Amino acid sequence: MKADGIGPGQIIRRRPDGSLEYRHDELTIEEPLEIRIGDQTLATTMRTPGHDEELAAGFLLSEAIVRAGDKIDKFSRPKSARNRDNIVVVDLGDGKKVKLNFAQRFGTISSSCGLCGKESIEAIRQNFPAITSTSWRIDLETLLSLPDKLRANQSDFARTGGIHAAGIFDAKGNALIVREDIGRHNAVDKVIGRALLDGKLPLDRHALLVSGRASFEIMQKALAAGIPIVASVSAPSSLAMEFARESNQTLAGFLRPPSFNIYSHVERVILDQSNSRVTPGSD
Amino acid sequence: MKADGIGPGQIIRRRPDGSLEYRHDELTIEEPLEIRIGDQTLATTMRTPGHDEELAAGFLLSEAIVRAGDKIDKFSRPKSARNRDNIVVVDLGDGKKVKLNFAQRFGTISSSCGLCGKESIEAIRQNFPAITSTSWRIDLETLLSLPDKLRANQSDFARTGGIHAAGIFDAKGNALIVREDIGRHNAVDKVIGRALLDGKLPLDRHALLVSGRASFEIMQKALAAGIPIVASVSAPSSLAMEFARESNQTLAGFLRPPSFNIYSHVERVILDQSNSRVTPGSD
Repeated sequence: MKADGIGPGQIIRRRPDGSLEYRHDELTIEEPLEIRIGDQTLATTMRTPGHDEELAAGFLLSEAIVRAGDKIDKFSRPKSARNRDNIVVVDLGDGKKVKLNFAQRFGTISSSCGLCGKESIEAIRQNFPAITSTSWRIDLETLLSLPDKLRANQSDFARTGGIHAAGIFDAKGNALIVREDIGRHNAVDKVIGRALLDGKLPLDRHALLVSGRASFEIMQKALAAGIPIVASVSAPSSLAMEFARESNQTLAGFLRPPSFNIYSHVERVILDQSNSRVTPGSD
Repeated sequence: MKADGIGPGQIIRRRPDGSLEYRHDELTIEEPLEIRIGDQTLATTMRTPGHDEELAAGFLLSEAIVRAGDKIDKFSRPKSARNRDNIVVVDLGDGKKVKLNFAQRFGTISSSCGLCGKESIEAIRQNFPAITSTSWRIDLETLLSLPDKLRANQSDFARTGGIHAAGIFDAKGNALIVREDIGRHNAVDKVIGRALLDGKLPLDRHALLVSGRASFEIMQKALAAGIPIVASVSAPSSLAMEFARESNQTLAGFLRPPSFNIYSHVERVILDQSNSRVTPGSD
């Protein structure tokens, strides 16, 4: 070992005390996944391997190719491809051709849906109507407990950073599904995909928590799964907030107990009685 | 104002002292941008408006549609489209037809490039050769100063989170270009696009710093601009490290002074003499 080169699997680290060391470091795995329907490639995404079938299912749900209640016939790997572990083939069964053509015409979400924020929202809403239920509510303290519960469901490695997580929680704050991925969107696809495969959609009495920021696409995926409450540890985007307001979704951000922000439809959050007096802010 | 509804432009926030307030909140703007070459749509991305021409230029560079040294004839907005502010039309001038067709065949980066990590790297490397220069080096303390300098170049709002930043720095740690965007990839496209438009490519005596994690795509965009050193405040992915090692790029991560990790080609970092003794780590 010498200071001007690094061996395979090794990194150089400086400890907080200033000393340098060679060490092995665990990194989040990033590999491509190709999602096929039959012999047609639908999309390729950079993802962390594992739960590929859930990822494919969630992606198809987000693209409105499959719907809540639909069944997916089977998943397989191509028999002969060299990199078969990075390809998942979805068999939708009969009668799904039309939907596939529709999706292909629109392309994937991130490259679709209109040319202003408003149009983007409208394009999505044509596929996914707004949440109708307003009766399901969550206690504020339960909502604030979700980030800790998400972390408790992650691996030791994940807690050090470098991987995103998404979790589905019930009104008591119990984790239904937690998944990790280098891509935030993939982590969300995996949790809603698992719910789809388990026949649990719509998740109209559940909340989604994401480890990072909440973007337009996160809100859209939540809506595809019928989720009324979306929370993020960090900031939402302007379009995520607009989307949530128009889709009747509750959007919480900067969930850092005891602080939090609520951006839309606060009626689903049971605010603590002793602290529920809301005063105008100073700015 | 009442506790069960939120007015336009308002959010509900709980302060750390437990009290609730309504207030206006500034959110990172997220809007779609369609990049066209002539009348053909090349890509649509969700971005933070501003510096759209740089974003388009950086994207074309990353896709190998334009090269370091190439000129872009002009940028324009379509005359009649409703959402013309969210469309940028690139005119490459004559003789660029072939390259465009090539790019279209390969599709965009994120949906291209082979079906295993190794193939992904090789596919990119066909377009972009490895960095050849090894003579340019950066002092460790300069490298460690970059995160503070990146933040100093961001707006007050940006420093509160919710937006990514990318910066190009010289060997003295001077910021050449700093850009922000809701998408990390877009922020990188904006800085390398600016450098392209200014005729400053290759940036073979500069380092790129990104505010978040370093993925395969970030490394690839840096290579497209000829950047030998890439640093990130958070973790790199496995594929980012492999890419850096094969492309002769220095990759630093978890840049949190005094700590840091170096994942590849440490020979470009001048380690502090008093602390340069490297010892095997405990794990």
